[in-house]
Amino acid sequence: MLPTPTKYTLVAGAGEGQTPLNAFDRALLESGAGNVNLIRVSSILPPGARYVETLPLPPGALVPVAYGAIKSSTPGDRIAAAVAVGIPEQGFGVIMEYSGYNYREEAERIIRQMVEEAFAMRGMEIKTYMVKAVEHRVQKAGAAFAGLLMWY
Amino acid sequence: MLPTPTKYTLVAGAGEGQTPLNAFDRALLESGAGNVNLIRVSSILPPGARYVETLPLPPGALVPVAYGAIKSSTPGDRIAAAVAVGIPEQGFGVIMEYSGYNYREEAERIIRQMVEEAFAMRGMEIKTYMVKAVEHRVQKAGAAFAGLLMWY
Amino acid sequence: MLPTPTKYTLVAGAGEGQTPLNAFDRALLESGAGNVNLIRVSSILPPGARYVETLPLPPGALVPVAYGAIKSSTPGDRIAAAVAVGIPEQGFGVIMEYSGYNYREEAERIIRQMVEEAFAMRGMEIKTYMVKAVEHRVQKAGAAFAGLLMWY
Repeated sequence: MLPTPTKYTLVAGAGEGQTPLNAFDRALLESGAGNVNLIRVSSILPPGARYVETLPLPPGALVPVAYGAIKSSTPGDRIAAAVAVGIPEQGFGVIMEYSGYNYREEAERIIRQMVEEAFAMRGMEIKTYMVKAVEHRVQKAGAAFAGLLMWY
Repeated sequence: MLPTPTKYTLVAGAGEGQTPLNAFDRALLESGAGNVNLIRVSSILPPGARYVETLPLPPGALVPVAYGAIKSSTPGDRIAAAVAVGIPEQGFGVIMEYSGYNYREEAERIIRQMVEEAFAMRGMEIKTYMVKAVEHRVQKAGAAFAGLLMWY
Repeated sequence: MLPTPTKYTLVAGAGEGQTPLNAFDRALLESGAGNVNLIRVSSILPPGARYVETLPLPPGALVPVAYGAIKSSTPGDRIAAAVAVGIPEQGFGVIMEYSGYNYREEAERIIRQMVEEAFAMRGMEIKTYMVKAVEHRVQKAGAAFAGLLMWY
């Protein structure tokens, strides 16, 4: 099997570029996840995974990540991305992602409800809650990214 | 290299949530794939992979999956997702995914043709055919998911 | 951790099918990546990765890939996909992907600028540049795909 991640951190970033993909690249760089190969996953924090402030990711490494992201080429758009994780007393955590045309505070409010709903669905209780969010006002082409990076 | 999967099963689920992502989370839970990290792949069944009724997936595990999924926030929408695999006498199988505003029977009819076309393109003949599909009528925010989970 | 890829190649293909997914399947087959499980990543060439003309990918293998792709069901549409990588004197390379309703030459022009911008953002200089692009005129349902496949 593929090895289950044992560490994680939350990151977020936003930025501008000449194209939406370059803006996304900038957002990744701002978040600290710009020089790796992100593999998008949905979206469970493995039991026992340990939070770390920063992950020393080797360039080009294959890095599992649950993320929310949004790109826009409409000047003036306000965009936001958020990622959050709820962790119970014991066992796995549940990650939720959000992106939309919104303020950061609103993104954080919505994603909190999403994590709460995910826990209610599973009959679980949140012990620890973590969130990372970012907002951005588009100038030419902008992107916002928030992700929970998993590592070993 | 990454280890090539050796087992597989087909799952499907649908459900409601307060947001489309929560509905997707519910659909995953209903299917039995709600507590792992799905890695989406396109979309070949490795040669010799063995069908199993259920996969004992550890929570948070990285699980390769080929899937069709659809979310809708329009009450009354009928949505369907399907996954199917054709397997020849020998060698690899080909997986197809479908999602749309449709009935389950129609999803199953369409995906069958898709698998047949994929085999015709490769000059291969289907020996075994498996399909899993689900439909859902949206109340507030709904999602349907059908996937072929690969494992070891 | 997941093993970091050590080899790569660039591929592209386009084609027709009865459905957009079958057209995508055909495009993958034309490119030589039709019988594996592509795992989409974003999008760094690991340092020291070695270019090879062709990769002997086992059927059903899990293959990391950075790609651009587009599907269309509108007869007459001209679609293009491109992938490009810039590599500095030392260290990791940066991959960019493009897809759109466009000619191949235009796709190649745009993606060159994208790679240049990605290097400028990182304060790096391109030593080697590689691109692969394809265009297609849609008959019934068409797809174009260009990817940088990573392997071991």
